[in-house]
Amino acid sequence: MARCIFHSAQWWRHQAGFAALAAGTACGVAMRPSKLTAADGKQLDERSAANLRPYHLSTWQEPQGGLVKERQVNKYLNPIAIAWPDFNFLNPDELVMGHIILNDSKQASRPKELAAGCVRGNACREIFFNPDEVRAAIVTCGGLCPGLNSIIREITNCLWHQYGVKAILGMQYGYNGCKDPDQFPPIQLTVENVRDIHMKGGSILKAGRGGMEDPEKILDQLQKQGVNMLFTVGGDGTQAAANKLFQAAKKRGMPLSIVGVPKSIDNDIVFFDKTFGFDSAVAAASEVIRNGWVEATSCSKGVGIVKLMGRDAGFVAMHAALASTIVDLVMIPEVEVEMAEVLKHVDQTLARKDFMVIAVAEGAGQKFVATGKTDSTGHTVYGDIGTYLKDSVNSHLKVSGGRSFYIDPSYIIRSVVIRPNDHIYCSRLARDAVHTAMRGYTGVCVGPIHNIIVVMPSNLIASRKKRISIHSSAWQSCVQSCNMPKSLSGLH
Amino acid sequence: MARCIFHSAQWWRHQAGFAALAAGTACGVAMRPSKLTAADGKQLDERSAANLRPYHLSTWQEPQGGLVKERQVNKYLNPIAIAWPDFNFLNPDELVMGHIILNDSKQASRPKELAAGCVRGNACREIFFNPDEVRAAIVTCGGLCPGLNSIIREITNCLWHQYGVKAILGMQYGYNGCKDPDQFPPIQLTVENVRDIHMKGGSILKAGRGGMEDPEKILDQLQKQGVNMLFTVGGDGTQAAANKLFQAAKKRGMPLSIVGVPKSIDNDIVFFDKTFGFDSAVAAASEVIRNGWVEATSCSKGVGIVKLMGRDAGFVAMHAALASTIVDLVMIPEVEVEMAEVLKHVDQTLARKDFMVIAVAEGAGQKFVATGKTDSTGHTVYGDIGTYLKDSVNSHLKVSGGRSFYIDPSYIIRSVVIRPNDHIYCSRLARDAVHTAMRGYTGVCVGPIHNIIVVMPSNLIASRKKRISIHSSAWQSCVQSCNMPKSLSGLH
Amino acid sequence: MARCIFHSAQWWRHQAGFAALAAGTACGVAMRPSKLTAADGKQLDERSAANLRPYHLSTWQEPQGGLVKERQVNKYLNPIAIAWPDFNFLNPDELVMGHIILNDSKQASRPKELAAGCVRGNACREIFFNPDEVRAAIVTCGGLCPGLNSIIREITNCLWHQYGVKAILGMQYGYNGCKDPDQFPPIQLTVENVRDIHMKGGSILKAGRGGMEDPEKILDQLQKQGVNMLFTVGGDGTQAAANKLFQAAKKRGMPLSIVGVPKSIDNDIVFFDKTFGFDSAVAAASEVIRNGWVEATSCSKGVGIVKLMGRDAGFVAMHAALASTIVDLVMIPEVEVEMAEVLKHVDQTLARKDFMVIAVAEGAGQKFVATGKTDSTGHTVYGDIGTYLKDSVNSHLKVSGGRSFYIDPSYIIRSVVIRPNDHIYCSRLARDAVHTAMRGYTGVCVGPIHNIIVVMPSNLIASRKKRISIHSSAWQSCVQSCNMPKSLSGLH
Amino acid sequence: MARCIFHSAQWWRHQAGFAALAAGTACGVAMRPSKLTAADGKQLDERSAANLRPYHLSTWQEPQGGLVKERQVNKYLNPIAIAWPDFNFLNPDELVMGHIILNDSKQASRPKELAAGCVRGNACREIFFNPDEVRAAIVTCGGLCPGLNSIIREITNCLWHQYGVKAILGMQYGYNGCKDPDQFPPIQLTVENVRDIHMKGGSILKAGRGGMEDPEKILDQLQKQGVNMLFTVGGDGTQAAANKLFQAAKKRGMPLSIVGVPKSIDNDIVFFDKTFGFDSAVAAASEVIRNGWVEATSCSKGVGIVKLMGRDAGFVAMHAALASTIVDLVMIPEVEVEMAEVLKHVDQTLARKDFMVIAVAEGAGQKFVATGKTDSTGHTVYGDIGTYLKDSVNSHLKVSGGRSFYIDPSYIIRSVVIRPNDHIYCSRLARDAVHTAMRGYTGVCVGPIHNIIVVMPSNLIASRKKRISIHSSAWQSCVQSCNMPKSLSGLH
Repeated sequence: MARCIFHSAQWWRHQAGFAALAAGTACGVAMRPSKLTAADGKQLDERSAANLRPYHLSTWQEPQGGLVKERQVNKYLNPIAIAWPDFNFLNPDELVMGHIILNDSKQASRPKELAAGCVRGNACREIFFNPDEVRAAIVTCGGLCPGLNSIIREITNCLWHQYGVKAILGMQYGYNGCKDPDQFPPIQLTVENVRDIHMKGGSILKAGRGGMEDPEKILDQLQKQGVNMLFTVGGDGTQAAANKLFQAAKKRGMPLSIVGVPKSIDNDIVFFDKTFGFDSAVAAASEVIRNGWVEATSCSKGVGIVKLMGRDAGFVAMHAALASTIVDLVMIPEVEVEMAEVLKHVDQTLARKDFMVIAVAEGAGQKFVATGKTDSTGHTVYGDIGTYLKDSVNSHLKVSGGRSFYIDPSYIIRSVVIRPNDHIYCSRLARDAVHTAMRGYTGVCVGPIHNIIVVMPSNLIASRKKRISIHSSAWQSCVQSCNMPKSLSGLH
Repeated sequence: MARCIFHSAQWWRHQAGFAALAAGTACGVAMRPSKLTAADGKQLDERSAANLRPYHLSTWQEPQGGLVKERQVNKYLNPIAIAWPDFNFLNPDELVMGHIILNDSKQASRPKELAAGCVRGNACREIFFNPDEVRAAIVTCGGLCPGLNSIIREITNCLWHQYGVKAILGMQYGYNGCKDPDQFPPIQLTVENVRDIHMKGGSILKAGRGGMEDPEKILDQLQKQGVNMLFTVGGDGTQAAANKLFQAAKKRGMPLSIVGVPKSIDNDIVFFDKTFGFDSAVAAASEVIRNGWVEATSCSKGVGIVKLMGRDAGFVAMHAALASTIVDLVMIPEVEVEMAEVLKHVDQTLARKDFMVIAVAEGAGQKFVATGKTDSTGHTVYGDIGTYLKDSVNSHLKVSGGRSFYIDPSYIIRSVVIRPNDHIYCSRLARDAVHTAMRGYTGVCVGPIHNIIVVMPSNLIASRKKRISIHSSAWQSCVQSCNMPKSLSGLH
Repeated sequence: MARCIFHSAQWWRHQAGFAALAAGTACGVAMRPSKLTAADGKQLDERSAANLRPYHLSTWQEPQGGLVKERQVNKYLNPIAIAWPDFNFLNPDELVMGHIILNDSKQASRPKELAAGCVRGNACREIFFNPDEVRAAIVTCGGLCPGLNSIIREITNCLWHQYGVKAILGMQYGYNGCKDPDQFPPIQLTVENVRDIHMKGGSILKAGRGGMEDPEKILDQLQKQGVNMLFTVGGDGTQAAANKLFQAAKKRGMPLSIVGVPKSIDNDIVFFDKTFGFDSAVAAASEVIRNGWVEATSCSKGVGIVKLMGRDAGFVAMHAALASTIVDLVMIPEVEVEMAEVLKHVDQTLARKDFMVIAVAEGAGQKFVATGKTDSTGHTVYGDIGTYLKDSVNSHLKVSGGRSFYIDPSYIIRSVVIRPNDHIYCSRLARDAVHTAMRGYTGVCVGPIHNIIVVMPSNLIASRKKRISIHSSAWQSCVQSCNMPKSLSGLH
Repeated sequence: MARCIFHSAQWWRHQAGFAALAAGTACGVAMRPSKLTAADGKQLDERSAANLRPYHLSTWQEPQGGLVKERQVNKYLNPIAIAWPDFNFLNPDELVMGHIILNDSKQASRPKELAAGCVRGNACREIFFNPDEVRAAIVTCGGLCPGLNSIIREITNCLWHQYGVKAILGMQYGYNGCKDPDQFPPIQLTVENVRDIHMKGGSILKAGRGGMEDPEKILDQLQKQGVNMLFTVGGDGTQAAANKLFQAAKKRGMPLSIVGVPKSIDNDIVFFDKTFGFDSAVAAASEVIRNGWVEATSCSKGVGIVKLMGRDAGFVAMHAALASTIVDLVMIPEVEVEMAEVLKHVDQTLARKDFMVIAVAEGAGQKFVATGKTDSTGHTVYGDIGTYLKDSVNSHLKVSGGRSFYIDPSYIIRSVVIRPNDHIYCSRLARDAVHTAMRGYTGVCVGPIHNIIVVMPSNLIASRKKRISIHSSAWQSCVQSCNMPKSLSGLH
């Protein structure tokens, strides 16, 4: 155990701790499974988000599904209840309804998984873990996204101040640091060393891809370090890996609570209202669109083109267009268009007002620039639609004297400091991730539906990606506010 | 064409216009009232938000309440449906459920008005007004708030581009311009003259208080100008006045659609999730808190004190504290405290880390600074808690060598440019206000519940103010993240 | 009143105007030339910046050079002196010394042109033009640069308020609008329509290249429009063209005052301290460097690479590095380096601190990416050093696991809003351009030496470009603060 | 020597070091004083800034004045010369001319002290100190000002990287930490702990007033800690105290180099072009003026009033007005006005455009609000002109329906993060302060004249304050661009 940082500290008696934890699992044995029926009379089935018994450390080894009877299985009193006798705790039986429209004309398209509602994520009076025995770890995976430091900070603060947990490891370079702590030694996180980190972009734990090929190796290392609570901040790939880690831990009977905070600057996480950092990215993108607009309006027949993030979903481009309301065309992966139509719209817009602004998601128009390649992880290598569009517009306008101004802000968008309201959102996610772990859930993610944070199995989160619905109010409003033609709107 | 309101393309031929308007009221007579039962089986009662028949121009003169059968009573085809055959319109029967928690332990405290759900606000295929005959007016009332120009712009754009309405008047200085257009002549709004206004703070229509004492006078003037659609952007007082105006118009049988967009930088509008401009105000307030923190951390025993908006509700202070997470004490109107406790917390915080930051809402601690006065409109004149706090802290710290740094940003917060995501929110409100008016509603406001924009009678909105619930997750999190003592938290 | 240029209050009665202008030239004949000696005892020679008699409308047709005796030749009283009897005017005989170091070890390298000092640019009591007869025009040429709108606004305001000139034309698309006002009709500028323009980036007159091939055609058009004062805002090419225009006007005897405000976002204007907009560009570039730094510090062996403007001079990159002080390597056109040395520095820096930031000027390292092409105007087409550097670093680091994060902010830098202090600078330049024109100078530019604005012949300004001196304090400080190795510093 | 931090470190053998330093003083004995004549033929007299022999550690105990023959008296080779053989060093004989206008009509008003020029501050090849024996300390005094952290950081970096000095103490709370290191223990500064500090406002060393009453006590403490180089960052009071400290050290024969970096957010430091942080303060103030303008333009007869810093000099108000160019009246301490005239201008401006913006320096109009008090340090306690003005305008406008919007940004201005270009300026000052100390000067300050940084005796800097000259181009331009009436301009 070469680099075990907590080796000497009193609260890091992990052998003892681990034994206690294992014993903890036993608590649940006597309990009766809750019915496979949600409070609303709706049947819970296997794919229901509320079917959380397989994802609770007291019941995960049992066959039955259903809601967890937390008040029975969670034996420890939340230390918050001692410090704050008048504190209002969540009733763990509460469910947030997934479908909240009556006479819903889109009923058929609502996700079945949410039909029975979702368990709320927040602090409960009874918790699963003895806080004295908790050894937590945080890992940030994948590319940068505004808010990573906010989440690291608030998970640390909540563990430290509310639960008295002082053993908090920051794993470096994503799962790489989990797998290989010798090469990438974890950082011991304290309220002091996270105090100002939310004032900077990026991640003090460094974000990294890969490292999750072998869950067993990661579990070995976590076990060595006595970690019994792991927070995984990352995209659908990260949560899929977290799910595998959870399955492997279940198999081992290693009582590790794994709670994910889904991250996607593209905002393509399914089920949840919105990802953290998305608002900050949209704000940054709006400013860049302003730059393109300044260029376009300061010359004759100028076309500002801004390439924005969005491999499979065009939320950043759409929202940045809605936020700036100075865009004349938004191209997103969800809508297939023809270049002839694009150029026609360019001509018409220039004829109408002599300038134009285009926001294009990186994943849009891939048929024009297909590379036919996949990278080492099997993902399609996308062609550069931004450059293609720039060149097409330039050659089209050559005769008439117009030209394009192309801006690819690339990392500028994702490396910004979190905006104030987005930081609040990160804090909510972080605190509820901690509460959820303390309540004994594992293999789950936290995130909001209808503005309320809920707990959901990670394999549901990893099951698919969210995309823009062409008939959503947002896209239709975007199309209208841009004055886009039908041919480029997808609405035909 | 009974409901044809204006026959002439000339906008302000008011005599003819008025006659047509009066005639228009008759249109709705033949329709049958919808049942007083919402789709969910829940009973609609008089105070139900969904009980909108009294607020629809086709049914307002009838005794029965209930849901409006828009598809029957609205006779015009939305022009969007012609331009966009594939556009997805709202099913007007859809209701957003008001209460969405199952097994809700706070069920008793949920507003009864929302129990039966709320009618959604969005574009419908069938509309009440013939767009050719619409003459709209916009008025911004009360103090400034970020986003007024965004709302003016997007109402104008939606009327102009989606409905082809070109007769759009901007009334100046709030209701004063409605009452006295000779002194404050209205501005004719066009897509050109609103194009860049969202890039500036304030209101191009100027915001003003007063002017609504005599609804009849205002109606006379609106009638003279042929206005049949009025958008009122303002706080609970503005919406109360709009309700009176609606009642007076109803009495006259003057078919004027009055749709409000509730405004409150304090975020104290009841029922709705959040007010527009609030996020921008919080962001600005967070930056000022940063200034106070810089001062406090750059001297010995420094206490930064920042006074923020919030007469009756401390949302700005609470959210700014949550957004900056560098505040040690938040004082809000909802929590009564003793100065001895405040000073004790100052001493303890300084002892712990040598600096401290306090965010105080203007309406907090009024018992210390009560003026005993009321202003001309009957509102209590508040004492200056910020200065009182500064002086108290200074004299308390005089011996020990500490001092305070007091910042009263006053108008700095409310005059900022709207932030990108807040502009999106303004746009949604603006568009849905237009759609709601086009659908024939009057005496109503638009705003979101559970993130979905709904239509609600203005008298409900004006009936009370929202305040921070001490046992809400937000306040409890605020108390925790600030490390406030019980004695100052209200949680005891 | 020989010099009376326009008799009519109607602005564009050009026939009469032109005759008057032609007559105007005769005014200066009777005057005696000033000695070819500056006040300091230093000899004025032909290339001296202070040798302004060839550039004054009273003396331009005469053979003698020397200082202009403005108090004798300028016959009109400045209207400021009437409005402000106590106003302090510039003594037109004052010269700013060009060389201000005693015992100067770099004496040999100081520009000879400045040896005799420079005439100050500011308001004088006696002016050449009758303000009632002035018809001014403004043109903005070349690419965008922060501050163009500030200069347009302040020229307009100064003409309007201080001199009562109301005939101010904004020519569109650079010289194109001068040459072809039918295709690009001029905008009439007023204090109202320029009021808020400095709050936006870009140029309301649109900036444009080309259009100056045929000075005669431009003069014909200006004459037609009665313009007798032209402000040319643009780079060295623009000022070279302005000089040709001046020569052609001189030949015609068309008394047109042409005053340039040199523009270069690269800051490569010779003689003058600094170009307008440069500080704003550096500030914007510093923020982008911050983005690159966030990326580099948030991964393992990350190298942030930011490409910045600077075709022939690396001022933006150097200053942005000095302003952010988080850069480890600055590559500029003035210093030739070898890639092996660059990669060695990458290795050493990563070994030392695991991350690195590189700022590279677009004109640096062209030997690696030479295109061998020239564009239609004869300028060398530069290869993309940014992409080259990114690829080189990536392939170099492939084995060790590091990678680069490449940002090309392109138009983001130049389309920003002017920063407050830069706006002050623009205002000074604009006002002094107006005063200089009013004093009768033509074929000149205004700009600061030693912080004092002076007047200088445009052909001097167009004669060469400023480049970074490798042994300047700025570059040496940059090299030191970046901890660059000797091999990449040019200091060897 | 209770808290001596460097006690054990090798380079902190201060006894030895101190002896060597004392010996160093002897070096100068044999040298002949330079003539009391500057290179320009101008006589150096006692008050000449260039008369630096009394301020050099090699000559300070000698009677003669004159220039220092640094190349003879400085015996150590600058380590930069070893690391960078090709580095270009300053010729220490170079002087920057103080008066650089020929035929100067304001010759009489130019400061006599600069007549003979000023010694340049920059790195020289020969230095006085053996870098191995240097123990430096930095102190920041008085109120906050943007850039303090930049200066702390760059002094540390320059000492560390360029001179290899690793013994750098950050004294806390201004001179208090110098006087009483037991109560306020110094921080050991390293390149690591200063790395990110320039990204925050304030001072990590905390700024503090007082503590300099007893120079002997400070010297005792510095001697105890072996400090032989002290950087004093503070205003004229701080530099006056530094001068006393210097006199006391001279008396003791304690070879302590004291080099000041003058600080004044009011920009009222005499002789030097501009203070650090001033541009950042002006930028922040301009934004607040924008807020006042938004308020004023968004109501009827609105008057935005912004109070800005400026006790005795109105530079911040004047520059913020010039930077925003949306101000209609600037009130500064240098211009006495009558309220009747102010109110008349208010009426006229409102009549002209219905809104108005006033920027008022805190020290303006004191005759209206005189307190008659002085504080403990003997400074006059100023009355609150902002509130007075607000009340006067409000009561004046009560009848006509107008009102004021008063903003007192107070600490918001001075606690901002340094702007990029201002950081460059701080870096220059910091580096040249280090070079100046290394060259053996003491009792001096560094700062720029004509954009070039020079060395000047601190007693000259402390001798008086800079004020706005009413007939300067800046104030006259301000008056003009604001369209202020003569009666409020001082120009009468």
